[in-house]
Amino acid sequence: MKKLFFPLLGVTFVLSAVAHYAHWNTTFQFIVAAICVVFVAGFLGQATESVAHYAGQRLGGFLNATFGNAAELIIAIFLVKEGLFDMVKASLTGSIIGNLLLVLGASALAGGLKFKEQKFNIHLAGQNSTLMLLGVVALFIPAVFVKSEHLSEDDTLTLSLIIAGVMIVAYVGWLIYSMITHKSMLEDHVETNPDHGETAKWSRGMSIFFLVLATVMVAFVSEWLVGSVEVFSEKFGFSELFVGAFIVAIIGNAAEHSAAIMLAMKNKIGAAVEIAVGSSLQIALFVAPVLIFVSLLFERHMNILFSTIEIAAIAVAVLITSSVSRDGQTTWYEGKLLLLVYVVLGVAFFFV
Amino acid sequence: MKKLFFPLLGVTFVLSAVAHYAHWNTTFQFIVAAICVVFVAGFLGQATESVAHYAGQRLGGFLNATFGNAAELIIAIFLVKEGLFDMVKASLTGSIIGNLLLVLGASALAGGLKFKEQKFNIHLAGQNSTLMLLGVVALFIPAVFVKSEHLSEDDTLTLSLIIAGVMIVAYVGWLIYSMITHKSMLEDHVETNPDHGETAKWSRGMSIFFLVLATVMVAFVSEWLVGSVEVFSEKFGFSELFVGAFIVAIIGNAAEHSAAIMLAMKNKIGAAVEIAVGSSLQIALFVAPVLIFVSLLFERHMNILFSTIEIAAIAVAVLITSSVSRDGQTTWYEGKLLLLVYVVLGVAFFFV
Amino acid sequence: MKKLFFPLLGVTFVLSAVAHYAHWNTTFQFIVAAICVVFVAGFLGQATESVAHYAGQRLGGFLNATFGNAAELIIAIFLVKEGLFDMVKASLTGSIIGNLLLVLGASALAGGLKFKEQKFNIHLAGQNSTLMLLGVVALFIPAVFVKSEHLSEDDTLTLSLIIAGVMIVAYVGWLIYSMITHKSMLEDHVETNPDHGETAKWSRGMSIFFLVLATVMVAFVSEWLVGSVEVFSEKFGFSELFVGAFIVAIIGNAAEHSAAIMLAMKNKIGAAVEIAVGSSLQIALFVAPVLIFVSLLFERHMNILFSTIEIAAIAVAVLITSSVSRDGQTTWYEGKLLLLVYVVLGVAFFFV
Repeated sequence: MKKLFFPLLGVTFVLSAVAHYAHWNTTFQFIVAAICVVFVAGFLGQATESVAHYAGQRLGGFLNATFGNAAELIIAIFLVKEGLFDMVKASLTGSIIGNLLLVLGASALAGGLKFKEQKFNIHLAGQNSTLMLLGVVALFIPAVFVKSEHLSEDDTLTLSLIIAGVMIVAYVGWLIYSMITHKSMLEDHVETNPDHGETAKWSRGMSIFFLVLATVMVAFVSEWLVGSVEVFSEKFGFSELFVGAFIVAIIGNAAEHSAAIMLAMKNKIGAAVEIAVGSSLQIALFVAPVLIFVSLLFERHMNILFSTIEIAAIAVAVLITSSVSRDGQTTWYEGKLLLLVYVVLGVAFFFV
Repeated sequence: MKKLFFPLLGVTFVLSAVAHYAHWNTTFQFIVAAICVVFVAGFLGQATESVAHYAGQRLGGFLNATFGNAAELIIAIFLVKEGLFDMVKASLTGSIIGNLLLVLGASALAGGLKFKEQKFNIHLAGQNSTLMLLGVVALFIPAVFVKSEHLSEDDTLTLSLIIAGVMIVAYVGWLIYSMITHKSMLEDHVETNPDHGETAKWSRGMSIFFLVLATVMVAFVSEWLVGSVEVFSEKFGFSELFVGAFIVAIIGNAAEHSAAIMLAMKNKIGAAVEIAVGSSLQIALFVAPVLIFVSLLFERHMNILFSTIEIAAIAVAVLITSSVSRDGQTTWYEGKLLLLVYVVLGVAFFFV
Repeated sequence: MKKLFFPLLGVTFVLSAVAHYAHWNTTFQFIVAAICVVFVAGFLGQATESVAHYAGQRLGGFLNATFGNAAELIIAIFLVKEGLFDMVKASLTGSIIGNLLLVLGASALAGGLKFKEQKFNIHLAGQNSTLMLLGVVALFIPAVFVKSEHLSEDDTLTLSLIIAGVMIVAYVGWLIYSMITHKSMLEDHVETNPDHGETAKWSRGMSIFFLVLATVMVAFVSEWLVGSVEVFSEKFGFSELFVGAFIVAIIGNAAEHSAAIMLAMKNKIGAAVEIAVGSSLQIALFVAPVLIFVSLLFERHMNILFSTIEIAAIAVAVLITSSVSRDGQTTWYEGKLLLLVYVVLGVAFFFV
């Protein structure tokens, strides 16, 4: 599998490009781009890890956090540019609940079948809960106020921008807090860092080059994927919401999924939690607000109003994840519960 | 009292039967059946306990969980058969909030007046909270999706069946988890098992016979009770909802009520929590979904949509119980708080 | 500053009186009364502390709890008398969220910049969370029931009175529990009591006299302030809601604000939590219900129905505060998060 990675990456990338520019069958376009995105996301993940190896743990964590969601951010920017705000919000929703329920659930289940209990830093668990709650609040408050009080569109946009700004301030504060001022309080044991003691695959310069290359490739494939999603979803009768929240989100997070599960099976549940919860926090507190500011560059501006069912889904995912993770340990049954809640949400979205 | 138990059981049972089949005054029918239900529920409880004595703790726990809610399940099946879905949902709601607030509240208050602090397994407290939250999610998600997105009746029923299936899977997983794979992690000290060291009242064969007999009697009395409830509630101007959620629920849970309070006063709060929370979990995650499948056997099919006030009441009961029990200890004041929330809900339902 | 306190108190009080009775410019009336309220609140705080010094810790705590919110209660009674129920509810909402988010947030941030972690009694943290949740439930339940079930105005008032009665019972129970039966369980170390070892500024008789005097002054200034708020808020285009929930609430809680921040900077975060959370609990569970009963003395009666956005704001403040404080410790970042949520709510209320 490892030997075939780069050939397959190359083949699927070229095939996707040809399918897109030669206007081949849309279903084929979608499928080949969806497969390709898994490979480029994996490539991006490896490049990020390799750079993190040279840059040290602290900066590495920051890079991981910043590049890890690059695929989502780039996909979303293309959607924002085309004014497909509902699709953007659906895919953000899908990423958040996918990370919290699917990635964390599968990790806890896989790890829990091997180890009776898996423990991680209890302070981090508490802080994660609070931050996830902040993300819910930032979506819930504008929705309630705009609906109950019939705010004008201009006021809604201003409110959205201010809340987006607050979220970015909160996220930057979190980076300072968790990586500088209270780093040691929130750390697991050393062995949770998967890179520890491993030698790097690539040189420093090569790593940086691959990071840039992977990001560019992700950008291209994402655009092709988005182009075919709409036609594809119509063909199969899936709602835009279901495609955005589940199909696109699962594909876009493929790299995180496999990494987190593998870490959990090595009894490094703390690292798996950091990937799953950390990634969903970044989407809620950084990617989503940045997209609102990015939309100011284009003709139509995106506000922060998510639909009732999206907010409900995120709130449910956050509450159940908090309840499961609050005690700083996970078991197979808790993983199963998270997956079951994911199934419930998936089915509900499917029927919309 | 103990001596009079079986004579009174017999007398009220016969009287209920005569009153029902001879079409006596409806108020009298209701009262005598309501009294009788307390005795047959008590009889069922004793038979269950006695069987559990022979079958061992693990299987005993399972039997207790399965037969403990027999009265509710049987009452509910008759109501489902008659298409009285609103009454069914009201009585399920009433059972859940009655167990969480009234039974647990009265136990914590009674126990807390005798003992300053009563501790129970903190892992169990956390898991209970998560599972109760799952029950709320399973009611909340379909309600939100159906209301916001105007799902068709067919889609609503399919969604209901899938969610009901998920809940049963979650409940079966919980039995495996709490009774097999993680039994020791969730256990209290040995002395919380009330049967420990006691000799059985009845022989093994007698116990099984009484279990079957009691279940049959519960079935009959429940049907008679349900028959008179509607007329009775009209007469006194009580809403169907109030009767279902409070009067029927209190009567139907009489056996659990007295058992839990007596255990708490013996400083066995862990067992009281297991009865109160365990029973409400079984209703939310097993009885309710089973009823949805049972309704497929009849002409009209029941969906999983509870009314806004029912979901609100369950959510409130779950949140306050979680908050009170999360630290694995109870005091008199926490019991009083649960009872006060029960009063608030009771009054609110009364005015509907 | 200390030397100037009483002269400034006198000057602003006289100036406020003259401005009010001579019908000077309304903006000037508002500003001078707003400044004066800060001084009289401070005076009331000092008098209360001094009485507490003589009365002992237990009774002192009770007096502090009872007189600490005197300003809010008195302002509110005048508003109730004039039938300005929306303004009353807005200012109660503002006091609750202001204490939980602004006072506690600023304390945790200020204390956290000086001390890495600040710990307080973890049992108290849990109990506070439960009680705050009770306050939310008491507002949420009637709102949901009245809206979904279209209760009549009479039923709504009866429901309001019963719930108000329940809340007062809960609050009195809390005083007995936290000050008598479980006092020691909920206490911090001795040094958290700010009066310990300090000599009193005033004699016993003088302290009582000043307490009465300060309360009377608060009553007068509050009435003048309320008189000018309406005109003032129209002039600047602020909504009544924003003025009630933010401007009046910040002014009315000035004394608590400064005391709590100073205590936190002396590493007495437990005392700061007690002021912030204790004060908001008293408003939710005692001041608000008392006002409902007080309104029976006047022509128009106030019910317990808060608006959707007020309940949403209180629920959000309670959830985030619970999540932050549940572990019995605070850091600078947690303080910052609380302040950011306060900003989000403030901005949202501003746009209404």
